[in-house]
This record gives sequence, structure tokens and C-alpha cells, in this order.
Amino acid sequence: MSKKQKKHIYKPRPISGFPEWLPQVRRIEQQWMDHIRETFERYGYCSIETPSVEELDVINAKGGDGGADVDKEVYVIERLHKDEDSKEARLALHFDQTVPLARYVAQHFNDLVFPFKRYQMQRVWRGERPQAGRFREFYQCDIDVINIDNLPLHFDAEMPAIIWETLSSLSGMEDENICLRISNRKILMGLLDDLEIENKVDVTRWIDKLDKLDANLIKKEIGDLGVSAAAIEKIMSLVSLKTRDPQAILDHVASISTSEAITEGAEELAFVMKNLAHLPEGAAVADLAIVRGLDYYTGTVYETVFTDDPAYGSICSGGRYDDLAGNYINKHLPGVGISIGFSRLFDRLRIANKLGAERISPADVLVVLPSEDKRGLTAVTAQRLRARGIKVEQYHNPQKIGKQMSYAEKKGIPYVWFPPFDDDGAHEVKNMASKEQAAADPDAWKMP
Amino acid sequence: MSKKQKKHIYKPRPISGFPEWLPQVRRIEQQWMDHIRETFERYGYCSIETPSVEELDVINAKGGDGGADVDKEVYVIERLHKDEDSKEARLALHFDQTVPLARYVAQHFNDLVFPFKRYQMQRVWRGERPQAGRFREFYQCDIDVINIDNLPLHFDAEMPAIIWETLSSLSGMEDENICLRISNRKILMGLLDDLEIENKVDVTRWIDKLDKLDANLIKKEIGDLGVSAAAIEKIMSLVSLKTRDPQAILDHVASISTSEAITEGAEELAFVMKNLAHLPEGAAVADLAIVRGLDYYTGTVYETVFTDDPAYGSICSGGRYDDLAGNYINKHLPGVGISIGFSRLFDRLRIANKLGAERISPADVLVVLPSEDKRGLTAVTAQRLRARGIKVEQYHNPQKIGKQMSYAEKKGIPYVWFPPFDDDGAHEVKNMASKEQAAADPDAWKMP
Repeated sequence: MSKKQKKHIYKPRPISGFPEWLPQVRRIEQQWMDHIRETFERYGYCSIETPSVEELDVINAKGGDGGADVDKEVYVIERLHKDEDSKEARLALHFDQTVPLARYVAQHFNDLVFPFKRYQMQRVWRGERPQAGRFREFYQCDIDVINIDNLPLHFDAEMPAIIWETLSSLSGMEDENICLRISNRKILMGLLDDLEIENKVDVTRWIDKLDKLDANLIKKEIGDLGVSAAAIEKIMSLVSLKTRDPQAILDHVASISTSEAITEGAEELAFVMKNLAHLPEGAAVADLAIVRGLDYYTGTVYETVFTDDPAYGSICSGGRYDDLAGNYINKHLPGVGISIGFSRLFDRLRIANKLGAERISPADVLVVLPSEDKRGLTAVTAQRLRARGIKVEQYHNPQKIGKQMSYAEKKGIPYVWFPPFDDDGAHEVKNMASKEQAAADPDAWKMP
Repeated sequence: MSKKQKKHIYKPRPISGFPEWLPQVRRIEQQWMDHIRETFERYGYCSIETPSVEELDVINAKGGDGGADVDKEVYVIERLHKDEDSKEARLALHFDQTVPLARYVAQHFNDLVFPFKRYQMQRVWRGERPQAGRFREFYQCDIDVINIDNLPLHFDAEMPAIIWETLSSLSGMEDENICLRISNRKILMGLLDDLEIENKVDVTRWIDKLDKLDANLIKKEIGDLGVSAAAIEKIMSLVSLKTRDPQAILDHVASISTSEAITEGAEELAFVMKNLAHLPEGAAVADLAIVRGLDYYTGTVYETVFTDDPAYGSICSGGRYDDLAGNYINKHLPGVGISIGFSRLFDRLRIANKLGAERISPADVLVVLPSEDKRGLTAVTAQRLRARGIKVEQYHNPQKIGKQMSYAEKKGIPYVWFPPFDDDGAHEVKNMASKEQAAADPDAWKMP
């Protein structure tokens, strides 16, 4: 049977939950990545990457009550033709960058300088049911700092400052209003302790829904958990505070409780807000109703919402954890970090047509090929421009000039360069937007 | 049982074949990535990324004799808690970027502008036995161009020019000599056809070993395949040619055969070499013994070796294929491409200590914190420097200045900035290498 006969067309289709972009969209995605990375580095955070997989035991050792929920979503990998008696450890794709960070810090502990300030921008995988804004493979951009024994509160304030600077200046975000909501878990948890409430996690789960559900419904649900009406009033009064004023936090909390843990939480939150005073109005707000689901947060917590559409959920979340890597190393390693849900944010703006994704080619200039015998001249011209950092496509075929120009137009290349068509001619360059064409020197021309 | 009691330390260990770097090495890796990407874009190639997975059927549809070999290495992924009756397609991590490119072009055919010039720099996975220079997870940097029906030979020459420019100027490669070896399969395959040799693939497999094994041994092995001594002499004579001179290629090949396919191959190779005449001596050589294993190459083929250590194998390979996406779409889509084995190359230089991986922090400047009451001043100083694009760490604790400076030293931060310690003092900056310290204005200072 010849190859020809065997040929079978397997028509490809998109894989649900695994996004893929056309070049013009990918171009903006890359600009976003560069921008985020550049901002993280401007604050002196170093990059790390970890393998896409962890040992399944490492992922399961993570502990905390979050473990069980999360492990439904894990993808394991396996060689298609594995040896049945293989002794290799089971591997799973990481579902976040926090477990890998904890494992990394434990494993390389002796080779790191603390406080260890790192950012990490990789794909993560979760086998959840795909839906709008939820992918199975997506990018996260994390920034964390870890120290030994003691981590200054300074960093709890640095995180939202970095995130604000990053997100507010992303291209396409000009007309979006976002708000960083900040709280400190010591406050609400402290009050629940004071009130001797048993199922604290259930109560906080309802508090967390305050911006989505009616307050009376939530009070009723908390009541159904066996919490007294007086206690509910106290809780609702506590979490009603939304302010950027550090003193208002201290006053409000003190009016409800002066117990030690609660006061400590209020002072920490006030410190953070004081250090964010330089941000514009509405950028960062202390909001005592913020809980964040993950059990390992022990102090400051963050989430970030679109001011006009908080129901879309948080696009950037994080907080402080007392002991990040305790499952992997016998050291006390407190940390604070925050994670941008990159793909989720990016896809929202893509769907809203706010990315301005128009250019396909990264080239600034297309050098035309007037005729086959000018191929050398076209090549040399392109190289002279490239030598000065200009991005140049060299056209490949001596087709009609109109066809070459339409190629530039379709790819969004803003300038078309004409090498001299005859020996005593001059180089010329055409601005595709203004249609102006003028003589130019390939060793001196600059993009206007 | 309290949490404390439950705690179990799971000591993490490296996963064989899945590399992970310390921050100072990752920093250079990132510089390499930026450099490669920058060069690809300087030639007008656009970026795409594809999901980490493909449907297993798409990977298997790839066809060609290479399929069976490769599929031993494929990793499949699976949700840990999948529904037993799930109708979802089986997914596998991609083992290269060529299959994903073919699928991408077929799937998005109507939305692409041709010739489609793209680069792709992603991780790929192969479940091979890990060994020196062979990873199970590694980066490849691919550049390809695909056209409809017909792809000018221009691009066969552009590929090695781009690769030379990229690789020769990577940091750490200054003292390395590399050589791009180029051939055209029409020449050798044409001769084998002329000679009516049956097991062509086996013969070429031996030819491919000419730079590793003794020529007499190879002749014997080819003889054992049933090839006559006269035919072997002709083959060995053909593949002995190594030259950069286009005319020498034409003359040499014509002296052995003037059949149509062979002559066409020689003319194509001569065209490519003529267009690479601007490269330095030794950078690119026509070498008729180059075969490349993959069956889908139909014309030009490339490989790249260390001139002093060709036995390390190829660090960058590729070639022309007649019909890339024929398994996925009923169009004729010829292409040419080349792929840098990034991790393989990077790890070689890392092990040889040639990367100069010393700086941990990306920061240019550390601003010290003289005392707690100066925290605001330190923060404002850092922001003034950052506003001008300088990368700045702000020290977090009012520790002894000596301790703060030693932190800068350990992280490789080249400048330490001292905000005024008292009201009428001046800002000063210290160069950590030269130990010079001088007054400086945070709104005007530039790194020397």
C-alpha cells in the first residue's frame, strides 16, 4: 500500500479549556507578560521557574483543609508505554505555583539568600469543568517573599503596591477600574474565637459571599449554623467597614473588641493601609469582609475586583502565610504573596475587544524585492536596518509591488522600504498609515 | 488530633530529567530567551504558543516512519479523579513543536496570512531515559515558515542566517565555535534511487554516523545491507564533500550524477550557500553526509554542532518538508524550519561554568533603611529611582548598615543608595565594585 493511499485527514478541533491565540492576540499577551515581569523586576524580585510536574506525594503533603478539594482537579502524567514494574514516583502537573515554591525553598534552602523575593510566571493546570473565564491550562503570575522565622510587615504593603502598578498600566486596562480589597484574618477570626463560634470556616464562607448575596439571607444562613443573633450583629457590624483610613480601622475594630489578636490584626492592617496612602482613591480599600478561601492564610489577605463588576470574582489574590514550607523542611518560613490570574484577566479583555490586537507581524519594516536580480540588495538593505535594532521582514518573491504592499498591510507592518530600482536611484520608505513616501538612508533612518 | 501532631515532613528531591535552576542561573536562561526571541522578531517572525497538550489522535495522525519511534516517549495526562465514563478525548503532552504547528496551521488556516512566519519557544516533554544533556522536560526554540503550494527557496537560506546570528551572539558562547552543516536530501536520496538501492533508510542511517564511526566500518555495514562495492564507492565519494563554495557543490555533484533530482538538489544547495556567503569562515558548510533522521524532510536539511566536539550531537536541526499539515487539512503546505535544542545547549554551558551566573537579584540598586522613622523616605527614594526605569530593592528592616550592605553583596546588587540620615544631609550612592561613594540626586542619577 503506498503512502498516498494510507492518507487520512484528521480534522483538528480546539481542546476545551486549553486556550490558543492567533498571532495578533499572542503579541499582546507577550506584551502583557513583559510588562508584568518588568514591574516585578523593578522591585528587585528575581525569576524562578519550576518543572511543570511535582511528585504526587509532594502535592498531597501540602496539607491544610484545602488539600482534598484541590486534589480532584489534579492531572497526573504517565508515559504511554511505561514499564509495568516501573519504580518511578507518580508525577502530577502543578495546579498552582505556591506548592512548587514551598518545595523549591525547602529543597534549595542552603543556596538561597533570604528574604527570598521571587516571581514566577508559568502555566498551571486544573481539571475543572471548563467555563467562561475558567481554563484547564492557564498562566499565573505570582510574586512572593519568604523569610526565615520572621518576615517584616513591610512586604504586606509592598505586594499591593506592586500589583496596583502592574495591573493599572497594562495595555487595554486604561478604562477599567480595579480595586484591591485588603483585610487581615486575625480580625474576623479573632472575633469568631471571642464569640466561641464552633464552625468558623462555614461562617466565613458565608461572609465571603457578602458582595454577591443579600445580607439578610446571609444572616439567616449564619443563624442556621447556630450562631446567636447578638453574635451575628457583632460580626456583621465588624465586616461592614470599608475604608482606606488607617485610624478608622483602629477605631472601628476597637469599638467592637479589644482582645489581643484582634487588635494585632487591626494594627497590621492599619500599617499596610498607611503604606498604601500614595495610591489613588479607590485603588486599595481595607474591607473586613474579605476572607479568601485558602486555609493557610494567617494575616493579611488580598483580592482584586473590577470596581464595576465585582461579581466577576477576584483577578488577583493572595495573602500572608505563617509557615509556607513546613511540610517539606523543619524550618519556620513565613511568607506573603499574591498571584495574578493572568489568563482569566487577559481573556476578559480579549472578549471585550479591548486588547487592540491588530498587528500580526512584529516587523516595523517590510523591504520589498523589486526583481530577482535585486535579491542581494534587498538582503543587504534589510541587514543594514536590522543592525540598528529595527525589525525587518524581507519580501521573498519578486511579485508585483502592489502585492508586496498588500502583504505588509495584512500583517500590520507600518513601513514599506523600497531599495533603489536602478543603479542611480535612492532608497525610499513609505509610511503605510499616512501614505507618505520619502527618500531615506538605511544606515540612519529612524522610525518616527 | 491537633495539626501539630499530624505534621509529617516530606523531604523533596529533584525529579530526574526535569531541570530546575537557582535564580542566578534562571536569570541567564531568561536573557538567552530574550535574545533568541529578539533575533527571531528582528526577522519579522511572529510568536505563537500552543497548548501543552494535543489530542493523542492528532499526535498519532502525524504519520511517517518516525511515528512509531516517537510514540514510546509520549506522556499522556489524566485527571486524578476522572469519571470512569468520561467521553473526553485522550490528551498527551507535545513532544515537539512541529506537530502542534501543523495542527495550528490546519485549524486556523482561514485566519492566517501566508507565508506564515512563526517562532515558538515552549517546553516539550519526552519520556526518554534521562541522561547527560537529555531531559524529559525541556525548552525548544523553533522558527518555521509555511506557505500555500509553493515556498521560495529564499527561506531555506534565511533559516541558517537567523540561527547563526542568534547562537553566535548568546552570552557565554563567545569562545565556542559552532558550525551549521547543510545538505539537501534530494542529492543523496537521488543517488540511492539511481543506484536502485532498496533499504535506503538503513543506508542513510549509517551515513549519518560518518562523523562518529570509522569510514571502513561504515562501508562494511552498508555492504552487509547488500549494496555493491562500486555503489558504496560512489556514495562515499558523494558524501565526502564539505565546502562553502556554491560552484564546488555543482561541480562535485555533476561529476557523480547528472540525473534530474540530484541536479535539482545540488542547485538548491548552491543557492542556499550563495545566500550565506556573508557568514564568517566555518560558520556554515555544505556537507553532503548530513541526512537527519526524520522522514518528513524532503529537501534542505540542517544540523549544528560544536566544531571542536561534533560528537556532542546537533544542538539545532531542521529542514524543509513538502507538506507539513497534510494529515490535518486537504491543502498542500510546504515549509522549512529549524529548532534550537535550548535546554541541551544551555545545560552544556552551565556545566562548563560559562554562563557567568552570579547575580541573584535583578535590582541595580538597594536603598537602605537607616531607621524605622525613615521608612517613608526610603520608600519615596526607591519610587523616584523606579520612575526612571531603575530596578530597585528597598531594604525592609532598619538593621545595621553593614548587614544591609552585605545583603546587597550576596545578591549581586551593584549599587547601594543611602537616603539622607538627617534632615540637612544629601543622598549618596556607593558602587559596590569600586567602593566609591558619592552624593547623588535620585531624580537624575544614572547607572554609569
